[in-house]
Amino acid sequence: MPGPSGDHVLDLGPRPVPELFAELDGIRSLVQRTDAATLPRLDPSTLQAPVAPRTMLCLGYNYRGHVPDGVDPTADDPASPDVFVKTANTFGGPNDPVVIPAVADDVDYEGEIAVVIGRRAHAVSVDDALSYVAGYTLLNDVSDRSWQRKQSQWALGKCFDGFAPLGPWIVTADEVDPQNLLVEVVRDGEVTVSQSTATTIFSVAFVVHHLSQVLTLEPGDVISTGTPQKLPAAQAAHRPLAPGDAVTVRVGGLGDLTTRFIAPPGEPA
Amino acid sequence: MPGPSGDHVLDLGPRPVPELFAELDGIRSLVQRTDAATLPRLDPSTLQAPVAPRTMLCLGYNYRGHVPDGVDPTADDPASPDVFVKTANTFGGPNDPVVIPAVADDVDYEGEIAVVIGRRAHAVSVDDALSYVAGYTLLNDVSDRSWQRKQSQWALGKCFDGFAPLGPWIVTADEVDPQNLLVEVVRDGEVTVSQSTATTIFSVAFVVHHLSQVLTLEPGDVISTGTPQKLPAAQAAHRPLAPGDAVTVRVGGLGDLTTRFIAPPGEPA
Repeated sequence: MPGPSGDHVLDLGPRPVPELFAELDGIRSLVQRTDAATLPRLDPSTLQAPVAPRTMLCLGYNYRGHVPDGVDPTADDPASPDVFVKTANTFGGPNDPVVIPAVADDVDYEGEIAVVIGRRAHAVSVDDALSYVAGYTLLNDVSDRSWQRKQSQWALGKCFDGFAPLGPWIVTADEVDPQNLLVEVVRDGEVTVSQSTATTIFSVAFVVHHLSQVLTLEPGDVISTGTPQKLPAAQAAHRPLAPGDAVTVRVGGLGDLTTRFIAPPGEPA
Repeated sequence: MPGPSGDHVLDLGPRPVPELFAELDGIRSLVQRTDAATLPRLDPSTLQAPVAPRTMLCLGYNYRGHVPDGVDPTADDPASPDVFVKTANTFGGPNDPVVIPAVADDVDYEGEIAVVIGRRAHAVSVDDALSYVAGYTLLNDVSDRSWQRKQSQWALGKCFDGFAPLGPWIVTADEVDPQNLLVEVVRDGEVTVSQSTATTIFSVAFVVHHLSQVLTLEPGDVISTGTPQKLPAAQAAHRPLAPGDAVTVRVGGLGDLTTRFIAPPGEPA
């Protein structure tokens, strides 16, 4: 688990999330007792998906837009988060390219902070909710708008194979204030998204509480917190993703998740 | 795998769907060589969920309503099926009761035929699609309308724990014409749904084709084909499900799936 303060790796082997969560104090103590100079350096190209969720839930609209001075920014807040599911075929890691499907005409990116559940959570209160969070990672909620618009439910636009790259790692919850992070997306060298989680409509604590009233959340389940809107220039210059593009989701303290987009096998890149 | 013609059980032990699908000829031959009288009788109370899907996809509106003579019944057909996901926490078997959650005010049933995928399917044609189907079972797509209506996406209304009882068993695809089945639901002794799959907008073959363009479908994945509308009297007498209720989904040739609804643990029934 590399953190922002170092790039050495203490390999604990493959460990399920609940076990890591339960043993976190011991692992921290081990890290403190270990001389980083004796450890290998991180090779980011070897990183795989930091978690294999049983269930991934995602939020739609969850960041407030810009409003003129004097207008209440909460005036248009919905009463409840809009929630959809990304299926297991979508899950990928930080080094997995995403295939632009031949049938998808309007593939888009969404840069999001993803919450990883650490303990089974059912009907937990807002006050207790963050104690069920193991940590945070990044998600590019890749979406094909052409299929998303075919019907009222977004599932098909969201669930093409590989459309949920996660990573680069999980930062443990104690190192993060989830309501004070700057979410940025960089496409072709241009910052296209830049907005603080201070502007979300629903906090992480509220979302975990809200969802846990419906689903019993299991360790390793992922809840993605929605994307900020694109900046006006990027909105105006909308261009579907194409083979050869790369998109980076970056959040200070959580890392960078860069996803390459490629052609289907057998088609020219 | 008990079928409609008998109630004796040849226990093959737990077997994953792809293995059963691959060995079906051999299993049939074994069944034919075996004297049913030597086999134990089926005890339906011992049946568990016939499949543990990795992914369960469900269709919304997929049956045409009644139209007056002279009106084209296809006039209001949507161009694409509306698809949503039920998550792993919802899956149950034919003997699992469903808890009416304390926070769910308007729990409803939907009687559906569920398609079980037998072979990995990616971008399969309509003509080939049925060859990827292992068989059929029944789903009660239990839904809480109060949570379903909170937002544009239906996920939370559909994904309470236990809201996808499946069963009673899988009937292999060769025994079924999926476009000529009568879907019925019985609540409190009254038939509240009764409509043939001949009136679906999207056939099973089309749906498997359509979804396989998006997701690579894996053996054991389930696609539920939507519910017919309730009969007018049942629509007029809408009453949310409550502890003590029981609902039976029945389809000739596929069996009966009866689900009991109960109060949360610790609350009076």
